[in-house]
Amino acid sequence: MQLAVSTVILALRPTPDGSGTTLWLPLVRRIREPFLGAWALPGEPLEEHMSLVEAARARLRHTIGLDPNYLEQLYAFGGVDRSRDGSSPDAPCPERVVSIVYWALVRADEDARMVAGENVAWFPAEQLPALAFDHAAIVDYALARLRAKLEYTPIAHAFLPDEFTLTEVREVYEAVLGRGLDPANFRRQILASGAVEPTGEKVTGTSHRPPSLYRYRPDSVATSPTPPPRSAA
Amino acid sequence: MQLAVSTVILALRPTPDGSGTTLWLPLVRRIREPFLGAWALPGEPLEEHMSLVEAARARLRHTIGLDPNYLEQLYAFGGVDRSRDGSSPDAPCPERVVSIVYWALVRADEDARMVAGENVAWFPAEQLPALAFDHAAIVDYALARLRAKLEYTPIAHAFLPDEFTLTEVREVYEAVLGRGLDPANFRRQILASGAVEPTGEKVTGTSHRPPSLYRYRPDSVATSPTPPPRSAA
Repeated sequence: MQLAVSTVILALRPTPDGSGTTLWLPLVRRIREPFLGAWALPGEPLEEHMSLVEAARARLRHTIGLDPNYLEQLYAFGGVDRSRDGSSPDAPCPERVVSIVYWALVRADEDARMVAGENVAWFPAEQLPALAFDHAAIVDYALARLRAKLEYTPIAHAFLPDEFTLTEVREVYEAVLGRGLDPANFRRQILASGAVEPTGEKVTGTSHRPPSLYRYRPDSVATSPTPPPRSAA
Repeated sequence: MQLAVSTVILALRPTPDGSGTTLWLPLVRRIREPFLGAWALPGEPLEEHMSLVEAARARLRHTIGLDPNYLEQLYAFGGVDRSRDGSSPDAPCPERVVSIVYWALVRADEDARMVAGENVAWFPAEQLPALAFDHAAIVDYALARLRAKLEYTPIAHAFLPDEFTLTEVREVYEAVLGRGLDPANFRRQILASGAVEPTGEKVTGTSHRPPSLYRYRPDSVATSPTPPPRSAA
């Protein structure tokens, strides 16, 4: 039995047709069996001297050249047959792998500094190629968790700069949820939630009615699950 | 490196002095090094033919004689030195263990049917003995997660029968949070949350003003994180 640490890395980028913004993630082309040549989530067997989160950070740096601000353990996947290639039923049965998956959310300024590793390519989350192992189910789970957390935590913050307009927040919600939101309703709800507060500044530029800038309140992250002690992960 | 599946099992029982209700959990006395003789969370090395959740269910049946209705993956703990016994610095360094921890919440009717396994004893969560490995940090994390989920999910349901009075719901909240709550405020908030609905029935018995019975709405679990596909866990 092998133990691996894998990563789901999500960034907001323009849709392929340029009509909006959507979630993208990097995949790595496999260079060995099983699933030789297929696309897979970035991951590696856990090394003896690394904690789980250190292994996740190492994989992030190797895949995208940096270690994003938002990193969280997602789930451990350990189905008995998850390493088996259903399309090659005659292939020798591969060793069982249990994968502890971390997810990272990438801000635009982090995205701009990324350097893709070897065999890495980015895909829109809704238009993925066939993935190795049970990685398609893992991506689905990460997307469902992100959408759920958007409802009850300030996770949108992970995609935003320190100061932002309410339109920018709405665009994050729209991209993650995959649907348009009514601007006036959204504005009322996000303000009523108490998660954000005005900085007192406005966007500087040429507009004659510049929008106001907001920031997340420091205490608005209180509903996120408390992370376990650092040393334990 | 070893991979283990461990469990945090939480039930509501009377406080040791009988003055109220509090969280209790079962621990197992270790019969081998490291930490020989110390109390630990129920757990075992993952067997080749079992998925993670199957291993958790097997450990639950072995420890308490049943497999509670509420079972969820909590977190994977993989600190490099978590198996080392700090109180025996000269002991040989044990093999590294990564533990995938599940937590189970036990309803009163399940509690009544429990049969404790060998070397198992129950302790109030706030009065635990010294625990082996990093298990004290794992228990703290489970308690923090339970308290956080109480705020934004209908997790109290896991401790309650299908139909219950609002006083019974408040007593679950008070026991988990470890503090008293104002009955009128609590009643207003739980009803305003929309999580519960009246069944139309009242408690039958001798009281001349019997309290009304409630149930959780089927759709009130929508804010819980979506579980990943069964086959993957």
